[in-house]
Amino acid sequence: MRRHRGDCPSFPDLIRRKRDGGRLSAADIRAFVQAVKCGSIQDGQIGAMLMAIWHKGMEPDETLALTEEMMRSGDILTWPQEWSGLVVDKHSTGGVGDKVSLPLAPALAACGCKVPMISGRGLAHTGGTLDKLESIRGFTVDQPVERLQQILEDVGCCIVGQTESLVPADRALYAMRDATATVDSMPLITGSILSKKGAEGLSALVLDVKFGRAALYKNIDSARDLAHSLVTVGNSIGMRTGAVLSRMDTPIGCSVGNSLEVCEALECLKGRGPSDLQELVKTLGGYLLWMSGRASSLESGQEKLAEVLQNGAALQKFQAMLQAQGVSMETAQSLCSVQSDYSLHFRQAEHQTELKVQNDGMVLDINGLTLAEVLHSMGAGRTKAGQPINHSVGAEILVRLGQNVQTGDPWLRIHYDSPALNATQCYDLQAALTVGERESYHANPRVAEFILPR
Amino acid sequence: MRRHRGDCPSFPDLIRRKRDGGRLSAADIRAFVQAVKCGSIQDGQIGAMLMAIWHKGMEPDETLALTEEMMRSGDILTWPQEWSGLVVDKHSTGGVGDKVSLPLAPALAACGCKVPMISGRGLAHTGGTLDKLESIRGFTVDQPVERLQQILEDVGCCIVGQTESLVPADRALYAMRDATATVDSMPLITGSILSKKGAEGLSALVLDVKFGRAALYKNIDSARDLAHSLVTVGNSIGMRTGAVLSRMDTPIGCSVGNSLEVCEALECLKGRGPSDLQELVKTLGGYLLWMSGRASSLESGQEKLAEVLQNGAALQKFQAMLQAQGVSMETAQSLCSVQSDYSLHFRQAEHQTELKVQNDGMVLDINGLTLAEVLHSMGAGRTKAGQPINHSVGAEILVRLGQNVQTGDPWLRIHYDSPALNATQCYDLQAALTVGERESYHANPRVAEFILPR
Repeated sequence: MRRHRGDCPSFPDLIRRKRDGGRLSAADIRAFVQAVKCGSIQDGQIGAMLMAIWHKGMEPDETLALTEEMMRSGDILTWPQEWSGLVVDKHSTGGVGDKVSLPLAPALAACGCKVPMISGRGLAHTGGTLDKLESIRGFTVDQPVERLQQILEDVGCCIVGQTESLVPADRALYAMRDATATVDSMPLITGSILSKKGAEGLSALVLDVKFGRAALYKNIDSARDLAHSLVTVGNSIGMRTGAVLSRMDTPIGCSVGNSLEVCEALECLKGRGPSDLQELVKTLGGYLLWMSGRASSLESGQEKLAEVLQNGAALQKFQAMLQAQGVSMETAQSLCSVQSDYSLHFRQAEHQTELKVQNDGMVLDINGLTLAEVLHSMGAGRTKAGQPINHSVGAEILVRLGQNVQTGDPWLRIHYDSPALNATQCYDLQAALTVGERESYHANPRVAEFILPR
Repeated sequence: MRRHRGDCPSFPDLIRRKRDGGRLSAADIRAFVQAVKCGSIQDGQIGAMLMAIWHKGMEPDETLALTEEMMRSGDILTWPQEWSGLVVDKHSTGGVGDKVSLPLAPALAACGCKVPMISGRGLAHTGGTLDKLESIRGFTVDQPVERLQQILEDVGCCIVGQTESLVPADRALYAMRDATATVDSMPLITGSILSKKGAEGLSALVLDVKFGRAALYKNIDSARDLAHSLVTVGNSIGMRTGAVLSRMDTPIGCSVGNSLEVCEALECLKGRGPSDLQELVKTLGGYLLWMSGRASSLESGQEKLAEVLQNGAALQKFQAMLQAQGVSMETAQSLCSVQSDYSLHFRQAEHQTELKVQNDGMVLDINGLTLAEVLHSMGAGRTKAGQPINHSVGAEILVRLGQNVQTGDPWLRIHYDSPALNATQCYDLQAALTVGERESYHANPRVAEFILPR
């Protein structure tokens, strides 16, 4: 039908335009996002639009408009003038054993930053920072906005859940994307991540974009495309934004599972723990210090991070954050003491079973995706938003890549509650370990590439 | 996540498979259609699935499964044994001035067929058979299923609306397609048309697949693709199914608008009226007689149709159908008398205005789409399902293609209620007429091609 100048296009018109590969104007995108927020568009139309965007993508200016409209769909946090340049955060696209946020937030606070980390829960095979922290007795992820600022003043960092008032349009779209197989769309990912980070009122943001078997993007090229989209839009909405591309084939560190990962994060804060975890914390934190002008180079930023992990300053911030978010002083002190007995503070799973190496040789591969999927089937993760999870289920990896092992050596300690491991789970877990010839081993650093702000 | 053998795939899995160009099994399609019928799938997921099907299409066996599952989502009509081979129907993909069903159903009944025509209402620029018939005082399109069989026994034809119990899945999907810009998808069109016709328990079906400016498909190639899809699936679900491809650039006949079209259909039943309308009725009806074995050839079928239009047998059936569907005997008789004064039986629009030819020459083109859009804007059609329409609004075309005209000759009589025609409407209507050189004129028959049953 003919339409007269000035009329708003209808939602079927907008869907048709995107379906046919056309471009949506900023006004079109505003109408769509506002309608999603208000519930004035049919759910079927949202699903169709998401699928059309999945197929046809968006131009950079469309992605920018989508991100800005989503960000403005709710409150945007503002901070005291004197914090200008200090408010920073990190976002990771999700991996197996990724507990980086736990040491990173307090380490940055120890370097003088303000870190209002608004985090998510685990879904499918990726763990969630909030779930991990909730295995600590008393830790409260829901904090009112006013309390956030108080914690940042007193401590310098907090790790909290999304509030109702921030980015309501993202909450509606995110749930819908999950149900409609439209999660892996570059403009939709960009809009979702950056609208939330933009609403935090950040000065600088570093993105850990993962690629590999256990990541959303399997190869580095598509991860790089996403990183470029994120960096472009992030800088356009006024955050200094950079990214790293990091490998996600094997788990980060030696522990997977909620309470086990908290223990490993504490070890990192005590200057110990696996080197790949240390590497990621120092790289991401150092990059942020450099971007926000608190370090003259990436290297000097990394050195500052290493220093606060070694000298206990980061650990002290973590302890203060625990107390500020509801953990008793006694528990916080005990967890953060140098020789803590973690088993006093976390419920232990009913059973621990060690799997044994089945042939002699060098550890060539540990399949993080398989490991995560089996742990998920044992209750460590959730399939649907809102499901409860079992914080005690997890695995300790007892060998490292490149290590020589012999038949019968224990390589994995599984923590689980009844029922017993079934044959399929055991078979899958054993298949996650590859032992072979020294010649086949190639060591790769976690961080493969930096994408600089522009 | 890994899934164990025998588990149903989840809807996000099915959507993802189609999104990625994969094939859905008959069981997958059954799960989807059943869930649509029961409301156990989220609307957003329906919208996303429709858009994925729009982008990736369906293989013939998927389209067949979709059609069968939609058909079986409700009741399927059955008829007395002795009607075997007699129950026939026609479906048109929709055009401007398409009143073919009105003379065709009674003409087929006059040839001994049973015609349980379940029809639709107009949407956008295409008219609806039910809307046209409702301009006759007393005519009732809603008839219970038991009454349908009685009318077919007594009269041989009826033209009724969809009942609640037939093809509920199509009603849900059709409304959603309209809202999500997924109407023009070959498998979805095939499923929607044939599930409804299949549920009528037909022996034979002829499809009038239109192409051209005022049709859903603008070129003959895509119309042919749709016709092949319809013919293949129709024959697979047990109806002898054939199709014609017919041109839809200029309106069918000389009248557009609900009550005006009824008058023209009556003229056709009286052996008069425009030749292109007669041609379509004879061709579609003759094809059906041939397919259902009641004529030895297409030509002989067409001759039978011509005969019942000329000898009053079809007109008699129409009169009986009107009475069976609620029209008073007095009105039905008067409408069907050879010299009827139609103006006694239809509300006349407040105004009639004649537009004049603006240059000498030959009538080369009358743009049916433009005409329909202007009439639509004057109330003859609806933009949303459920809107009321004005049955009196319409246009009489006073010239024919290939006719020589002179400046000042009237060429269009518009029937409209207040407010007056505005400048844009007048301008658009005048632009619908093309007058030019004799050399530029090419006469084309309505019917371009036959697609035979297989």
